Amino acid sequence: MQAKSFLPPQRTLMGPGPSDVNPRVLAAMSRPIIGHLDPVFVGMMEEMKGLLQYAFQTENALTLPVSAPGSAGMETCFVNLVEPGDTVIVCVNGVFGTRMQENVERCGGKAVLVEDDWGAPVSPQKVEDALKGNPDARALAFVHAETSTGAQSDVEALCRLAHAHDCLTIVDSVTGLAGTPLYADAWGVDAIYSGTQKCLSCTPGLSPVSFSQRAVDRIQARSHRVQSWFLDLNLVMGYWGGGAKRAYHHTAPINALYALHEALVVLAEEGLENAWARHARHHEALRAGLEAMGLEFLVAPEHRLPQLNSVRVPEGVDEAAVRAELLERYSLEIGAGLGPYAGKIWRIGLMGHGASERNVLTCLSALEAVLGDMGAVTPGRAMAAARATYARQDRAA
Amino acid sequence: MQAKSFLPPQRTLMGPGPSDVNPRVLAAMSRPIIGHLDPVFVGMMEEMKGLLQYAFQTENALTLPVSAPGSAGMETCFVNLVEPGDTVIVCVNGVFGTRMQENVERCGGKAVLVEDDWGAPVSPQKVEDALKGNPDARALAFVHAETSTGAQSDVEALCRLAHAHDCLTIVDSVTGLAGTPLYADAWGVDAIYSGTQKCLSCTPGLSPVSFSQRAVDRIQARSHRVQSWFLDLNLVMGYWGGGAKRAYHHTAPINALYALHEALVVLAEEGLENAWARHARHHEALRAGLEAMGLEFLVAPEHRLPQLNSVRVPEGVDEAAVRAELLERYSLEIGAGLGPYAGKIWRIGLMGHGASERNVLTCLSALEAVLGDMGAVTPGRAMAAARATYARQDRAA
Repeated sequence: MQAKSFLPPQRTLMGPGPSDVNPRVLAAMSRPIIGHLDPVFVGMMEEMKGLLQYAFQTENALTLPVSAPGSAGMETCFVNLVEPGDTVIVCVNGVFGTRMQENVERCGGKAVLVEDDWGAPVSPQKVEDALKGNPDARALAFVHAETSTGAQSDVEALCRLAHAHDCLTIVDSVTGLAGTPLYADAWGVDAIYSGTQKCLSCTPGLSPVSFSQRAVDRIQARSHRVQSWFLDLNLVMGYWGGGAKRAYHHTAPINALYALHEALVVLAEEGLENAWARHARHHEALRAGLEAMGLEFLVAPEHRLPQLNSVRVPEGVDEAAVRAELLERYSLEIGAGLGPYAGKIWRIGLMGHGASERNVLTCLSALEAVLGDMGAVTPGRAMAAARATYARQDRAA
Repeated sequence: MQAKSFLPPQRTLMGPGPSDVNPRVLAAMSRPIIGHLDPVFVGMMEEMKGLLQYAFQTENALTLPVSAPGSAGMETCFVNLVEPGDTVIVCVNGVFGTRMQENVERCGGKAVLVEDDWGAPVSPQKVEDALKGNPDARALAFVHAETSTGAQSDVEALCRLAHAHDCLTIVDSVTGLAGTPLYADAWGVDAIYSGTQKCLSCTPGLSPVSFSQRAVDRIQARSHRVQSWFLDLNLVMGYWGGGAKRAYHHTAPINALYALHEALVVLAEEGLENAWARHARHHEALRAGLEAMGLEFLVAPEHRLPQLNSVRVPEGVDEAAVRAELLERYSLEIGAGLGPYAGKIWRIGLMGHGASERNVLTCLSALEAVLGDMGAVTPGRAMAAARATYARQDRAA
């Protein structure tokens, strides 16, 4: 069997995630491995819990990273909170709402859909109607930051409605966490999951989750066993919540946890509000440059996520060819559209470490070069618009 | 929020895993991240499949690393192969057989147990009786290498019996793979899962799995949807099996996959048979040293795993205090017993990169120092016995 070491190229990752990883995080990942029951490791886990609570703005004791990617974080929420026969109201305005529906159904629950256009936020009015029309609903599930479109929904308003109808709230903030304001406790979130590979500037593979006491009570009052052994929080809690007396559940992904710890330390050093403001700042400059080029945003201004910018592909342009050329000539990755927007939009991420002036200018110059050569945009304007935006921000500061 | 970077100590890991990681693997892990749909990454995935086929000694097309630890690999096998109402014969001779039973039951299946003493192998005679007594059984599940005891079972004999009764075989080789002979195809394994943090000398977090065509046919003929979205192979196959046209399922743990790729390249460079022989060689020396000290093995010689050595704690010794002192004074980790053997055995791993003369001598000298001070073993003999064993092996070679 012949094979050689894999030496990846150096990319600039401005798709929907994974995003550019902070070099401090990569360095942390390659530190010496220690045992998952080593007292030194257990101390790190405790510190990690506090750092995650800070990132989510919660005091939930049950706050931890699931040892698998965001999709497993989603499944953790559903398999623990949904029992066969439960009705769950699921808001669908993109790919990840549809995946929530899949999860509810695979748990034996009944998903009542609240549908909005892709690119639009979840409509609180429709949610209220669904809650009124389904008094037996036990939970409301929705996406804070829809990675497939770049639209954000009003978490606080949706949680208020759910609680008024005695429903738990399950929130997807895979792309939201650390990129745009999120206050899990103040907004009334009962269960939330995220990913490491977006605005935390960490490698993919873990899913931070947090559960309120109401959610924990629901889990402990279940009448059916959780269908997943790996994701059963009754068991996971024995390891993550056990203090010095941790029960072995599964072998934690040690080095991946080093990486997440370092990413959270970086976030704490910057400060959450500063990180949110930085994402907003670079989004404004990118937006100015893209619009100066003549590109149009999919999402209305008031619902846009600063960290994920969806723009429409100009008429007659082969979007895959553009992405291939960006990758080939500039080693720059941007994202394609999904579902109804496959071939019709690009998704440009400004996430975590990648939310920087360098990345904004790299993206605008490369995109302008490739699209300009095709005659698809007006060249020569993007850079000036972005720089004028930065200058205006600097004067205002 | 105040926190500092986590700087782990340098340990020697000789417990039941995670084991010492090859420095090449740690270096690979911190290489620059690229996208999970990047053509360069897709090429690496294809190569990884071939490397895993080599490690498992299989030509199964459905061979891939699950994006989560070994427990999730186990769950992948059960949720895809077991349907509600199915009878599965589950062999229990340690912790992981019990976990298999949990998995079957959470899938709505009926687990028929074949029980053997912890430390003993699975009895083919009892399995045959169970197969005869349960003609409706659809699968036989057992552990190749029981991590909780260090006993190995006869995979080939058990698979032959299962096939004679038209049962699929589901095999746990978390600790077996790359440490002791395993021929998935020649032995008739239908579904197998392993872990990265044992004899592959990689960090924990991924679970290599492989499924035969018979297993794939069973999955495709299911009448119930797989209860896990994350682990549904019908979906995972679209990403790992899709060639150039990969469908997005979940975000692959990129850097963890770099690490596994490198670990598999290291294995291919050494050669599988050489790796097996190396584990056997160092096991012999460790055994000689431990026995010279006066320690007794739990498992009978013919059923011992070279990579996991369980020895009985001498009468009157506080085993946890010994492990704590080994960790404190020598930065050496060995494992505790589980279940009925909690407090009664130590589990000493010689896995992958850690199956080395250096580790054998480190372990023997540290253990002899700590136990000798307590008067629990005869000092001054272990090192000579180990060195004599190496000398004898060298002469024979």
